[in-house]
Amino acid sequence: MPEAISAPRSPEDVRRVACIGAGVIGGGWVAHFLARGYDVTAWDPAPDAEDRLRRLVAAAWPALEQIGLADGASQDRLTVAPTLAAAVADADFVQESAPEKLELKRSLLAELAAAARPGVVIASSTSGYPMSDMQTAAGDSAAGAGRLVVGHPFNPPYLIPLVEVVGGEQTDREAVEWAARFYDVAGKSVITMDRELPGFIANRLQEALWREALHMVANGEASVEDIDASITEGPGLRWAFMGPCLTFALAGGEGGMAHMLDHFGPSLKSPWTRLEAPELDRALRDAMVDGCTAAAGGRTYADLVAERDQGVIDVLRATGRLGEATR
Amino acid sequence: MPEAISAPRSPEDVRRVACIGAGVIGGGWVAHFLARGYDVTAWDPAPDAEDRLRRLVAAAWPALEQIGLADGASQDRLTVAPTLAAAVADADFVQESAPEKLELKRSLLAELAAAARPGVVIASSTSGYPMSDMQTAAGDSAAGAGRLVVGHPFNPPYLIPLVEVVGGEQTDREAVEWAARFYDVAGKSVITMDRELPGFIANRLQEALWREALHMVANGEASVEDIDASITEGPGLRWAFMGPCLTFALAGGEGGMAHMLDHFGPSLKSPWTRLEAPELDRALRDAMVDGCTAAAGGRTYADLVAERDQGVIDVLRATGRLGEATR
Repeated sequence: MPEAISAPRSPEDVRRVACIGAGVIGGGWVAHFLARGYDVTAWDPAPDAEDRLRRLVAAAWPALEQIGLADGASQDRLTVAPTLAAAVADADFVQESAPEKLELKRSLLAELAAAARPGVVIASSTSGYPMSDMQTAAGDSAAGAGRLVVGHPFNPPYLIPLVEVVGGEQTDREAVEWAARFYDVAGKSVITMDRELPGFIANRLQEALWREALHMVANGEASVEDIDASITEGPGLRWAFMGPCLTFALAGGEGGMAHMLDHFGPSLKSPWTRLEAPELDRALRDAMVDGCTAAAGGRTYADLVAERDQGVIDVLRATGRLGEATR
Repeated sequence: MPEAISAPRSPEDVRRVACIGAGVIGGGWVAHFLARGYDVTAWDPAPDAEDRLRRLVAAAWPALEQIGLADGASQDRLTVAPTLAAAVADADFVQESAPEKLELKRSLLAELAAAARPGVVIASSTSGYPMSDMQTAAGDSAAGAGRLVVGHPFNPPYLIPLVEVVGGEQTDREAVEWAARFYDVAGKSVITMDRELPGFIANRLQEALWREALHMVANGEASVEDIDASITEGPGLRWAFMGPCLTFALAGGEGGMAHMLDHFGPSLKSPWTRLEAPELDRALRDAMVDGCTAAAGGRTYADLVAERDQGVIDVLRATGRLGEATR
């Protein structure tokens, strides 16, 4: 079988993806890869895994049809393999989405590295473990730990574009670059991280918000209902298309992030959350200002206000909330 | 002038709103109230305030026309008053949006309480001060501190629906109820809080996320660009229409929030943000589960997944991100 000893496929030539673990996230990956026209082989040790997986894919399919399927995409191109080895035997890429248990991830990734064809990149959907902690059992070689990367998706992986890609200490740089390129080809929006960070980026931001929410509920300060409404009727409307940094820069008016930090900087000491802010020294201030200037990319304050306003209107309309507001 | 001694208007009968302070937030309120068909009188001590305000309103107007103006709404119904007293003389409601300086807010609110007609409710746009700290100079009476409430908007107030309403220790319960009802009539989405909490609700959530972002930039862990993209391509797409609690409940699959907390509960101890989580005891677990069950309101897991999927698709389409994803 010549492919078994061939060089790894280029990201553009991937035909078959193996999805290991078929729960909410793993099943969501299956749906995504099928919709993008790949052959998918899945494996999950649960006895009812195939039924659940096919139901999940069928439930997601109408959404994927709306988005637009790739040529030849079909639910029929899903195979459920009887063993892990059979699942990865012909795969050009492996996506692991097992439960979040470190020992399980360690042994599973080692097993996958032993079973996958040479050169095939293996990505973990872990929502928080650094790859350095997960790759310790896979052997210190290009065929072992060297090809293990994190490819962290958001739920549902077939609709939320973001994937965070980062390697561990033993990961080859080429594997990280290959995975980032592959996800891009496969229709995802990729952030490649240069260094490991527990929780990566989006989950750290989300987790800070979530923990503050839990504190408020634990203390009887706010209800679940109010917490959810405070986001969907408030900042969540902006975050769908404009990130927290650029959004806050607009709160500074014409003066942008510089004015915002100089004006509201003292409020970083306010007890507005249980999380203490870092010291707003000159270096941090300048990094935020420079980052926002780069993000604006020449757009003026007026341009950005107009974009934000149109974005909010579009999101309100798309989610059925226009019309209600008219007095 | 009979109105000066009449009972306060009902929220439904408000005709004239006074907006005190005409910066980004105050000017945004002016635009909102004009678009909803009110007469608006504004006052701001800055010498160029009127020019800036009229430019802001003119810039917002096309967006407001898209949403749909109330009958008779017109930029011509804005009057810029020469003094604070003149601005509030005929007002049925007062919205204060001065800079975030506690002493300034204190004296300004006392001045407004002295100048406004009897029974008129006065709301502050403060983004974080408890009203109890701001109302101390206004006199302990219904005509003084009793009618001062927080009415905290989000930027821009003419598009983001949320207003958080809460009184201080000296605020009359009727004033809080009147303000909540008025904002509702005026097209806002209102959360009424029973108790004061620094930063209210949405800002606490937003501030936790923001401070984690600042830490990451301060430590060179992530760039401004990556932070913004991690939200707009990730959780921000869900938060535009489904809050963080219900979103996380779906991450628990059919088992919902109960499964999610039982499964991912240990990750609350993980260093995924610098904010430490509260203890996930039985009471907190049950409060989250019960809150999510109430929020689901009889919708099944499959119903909620379908709603979420359609919402993400609608938001992606509305913000011009469909089509790009097709392989």
